Amino acid sequence: MTTLHAPTDTREPRLRHGADRRDRWLAVLMQVSRAIGSVRDSRALMQAIMEQVTHAFDADRSSLYLYDHDRSELWTRVAQGLEDRPREIRVPSDHGLCGRVFATHQPLRIADTFNEPDFDRRLAERTGYVPHSMLIAPVLQKDRCVGVLQVMDRRIGHFTDEDLAFLEAVAVQVAISLENAALYQAQRRQFRSFVESLSAALDARDPLTAIHSVNVANYAMGIGTILGLKDSDLERLRIAGLVHDVGKIGVPEAVLTKAGRLTREEFDEMKRHAAQSRQILSKIEFSDELNGLDFIAAAHHEKLDGSGYPDGLKGDEIPLLARILCVADIYDALTQTRHYRQGMTMHEALKQLDEMAPHQVDRNCVAALKAFLGCGPWPAPE
Amino acid sequence: MTTLHAPTDTREPRLRHGADRRDRWLAVLMQVSRAIGSVRDSRALMQAIMEQVTHAFDADRSSLYLYDHDRSELWTRVAQGLEDRPREIRVPSDHGLCGRVFATHQPLRIADTFNEPDFDRRLAERTGYVPHSMLIAPVLQKDRCVGVLQVMDRRIGHFTDEDLAFLEAVAVQVAISLENAALYQAQRRQFRSFVESLSAALDARDPLTAIHSVNVANYAMGIGTILGLKDSDLERLRIAGLVHDVGKIGVPEAVLTKAGRLTREEFDEMKRHAAQSRQILSKIEFSDELNGLDFIAAAHHEKLDGSGYPDGLKGDEIPLLARILCVADIYDALTQTRHYRQGMTMHEALKQLDEMAPHQVDRNCVAALKAFLGCGPWPAPE
Repeated sequence: MTTLHAPTDTREPRLRHGADRRDRWLAVLMQVSRAIGSVRDSRALMQAIMEQVTHAFDADRSSLYLYDHDRSELWTRVAQGLEDRPREIRVPSDHGLCGRVFATHQPLRIADTFNEPDFDRRLAERTGYVPHSMLIAPVLQKDRCVGVLQVMDRRIGHFTDEDLAFLEAVAVQVAISLENAALYQAQRRQFRSFVESLSAALDARDPLTAIHSVNVANYAMGIGTILGLKDSDLERLRIAGLVHDVGKIGVPEAVLTKAGRLTREEFDEMKRHAAQSRQILSKIEFSDELNGLDFIAAAHHEKLDGSGYPDGLKGDEIPLLARILCVADIYDALTQTRHYRQGMTMHEALKQLDEMAPHQVDRNCVAALKAFLGCGPWPAPE
Repeated sequence: MTTLHAPTDTREPRLRHGADRRDRWLAVLMQVSRAIGSVRDSRALMQAIMEQVTHAFDADRSSLYLYDHDRSELWTRVAQGLEDRPREIRVPSDHGLCGRVFATHQPLRIADTFNEPDFDRRLAERTGYVPHSMLIAPVLQKDRCVGVLQVMDRRIGHFTDEDLAFLEAVAVQVAISLENAALYQAQRRQFRSFVESLSAALDARDPLTAIHSVNVANYAMGIGTILGLKDSDLERLRIAGLVHDVGKIGVPEAVLTKAGRLTREEFDEMKRHAAQSRQILSKIEFSDELNGLDFIAAAHHEKLDGSGYPDGLKGDEIPLLARILCVADIYDALTQTRHYRQGMTMHEALKQLDEMAPHQVDRNCVAALKAFLGCGPWPAPE
């Protein structure tokens, strides 16, 4: 147990009381408020909060443990400080000092962990870090404990009761922040799962196109990834891929599933689906992150030379995301078996796309699709 | 200008400096953090924050003004204190002291408004309240000012620079809170508008049922309102009404729009839509507020005597919300003209529902529908 000596610490003892310290708390609480920021990225936010906490207490390390219901464990969502230590720690939720706080909902201030029978020396041995002083506060959502906040220092008797009260205040903010992030994510999942389920049901009207929308979404995201698009654009491509054919709701199955070439009238009817997609999607109040999705999804049959539909857009009038969708849509259509012909092989389909570029489809997008499928170099040769 | 005298105020001067005051701030900031609470009800939350602010400054009144882009005005989202005054105040956004803070993004501390040429005496005359001391802090979201926080007191020289710094801290929390609420609401609107647009597009496959889903949603909410259901259940009824026929995606138009009675096989095909609705909806990760919606929506053809479909549920096995949907669906189906018959009048349709109750449909729900349509008493006679 050589790692468990009392520490020899040469740092100055910190100011224990008074206005300076409260001012610092106030400043930190304001920082924490700022850090609570957006509900969109709760991971980054928690990291920022814990950094503030470690700083405010002039402490070595602080952790946010969350409760994993399935495994009855507490795990470190954030472990701040001592960056060389293992980042995720898991402990049974009825175990040790954190487990006590989790079970009792009561905060805990420890002057020296070596006087505590509940202190888990094995964890200290495993991580090589030996905290003597410790604060632990429960993270409570109404009557439910969802985790604990822990601050540690190697020095004995480093924390005061006032410190603990302040940590409880931070725990309130963390609880709120986690709840808001969860509410936001639940709404997001609800929307996305609705889109997925509906697009699958629409595709299923024709057994031969059953997973066309998912395929287009995947190919489009593959092309977008090769092109180095940012995450929000990849998400736009995914949703646009799933809904690009939503206008086919209005196309009769007799046309959708016809075995044999379509007549001119039937083809006109089929073509109307792009405008109908736009009409249906234009009524949706997309959030900022999916802004413009109706236009992108509806433009997946536009061609660079202006021969496409519904608007006969040309060249730069067609946004990049729509060009990507177009290539993804054509590729999946060519490789799937349809009512009027067998599906092509990958190489046949890519050859046909090559023939359509650059007049009709974007050469760069075709090259990116090849790279994504492992059939071509990237960057593409001129 | 008799209302604009200097105030004669007999209250004690408040403690100007020191630890007591900072402790109080810390407590208030913690309260504000708690109040920031859920993103779901930002109105109540803002009210709670402003109450804390008024209390923290021992002030008469505080207001949160938000910017109305369409009208270039600042309006009081919350006006806390002096409850007998008008609740919503609107001022041009380039006007007065609030306008100055809004334009410059710089906070303002006023020892006596009577020395300020920008001070709007007309507003004071109109509201009958004359503030001498004033603090105003901008509510900033990144580089954009979305409103201002204002604290007022009748006493001259009531606020310090430290007070202003604290108000700026609160303004940060308000800005975050407003942004989170907006993000949450945007996701919510996105989901709801998608449901509305898709259900309208599905209904439109058959011109004669074009607004069936909206009608069912409205009748169901009407029945639910008469029955005194809570808001979250009314919202469930609305969404369930909009999506209850989503399974008809899989029913061919030839069956959907057949003029004349359906054959047994066609009717079986039509009946499958209820199970298909459930299948499509079961894949959706509904948020807590819409929990169980797949079951409710799919059970709209179940009958109390067990003669319904898809599961032949009986009596109490059918949840109240599904019984309500059932009555709403039958009523709209009877009163709309279909391919195989003319629509009934309201009285004919209600008579037919009376005949189906209590064996097939819920009597109480039928009585509530009558009350909603203004054709029957509520509570219903035994």
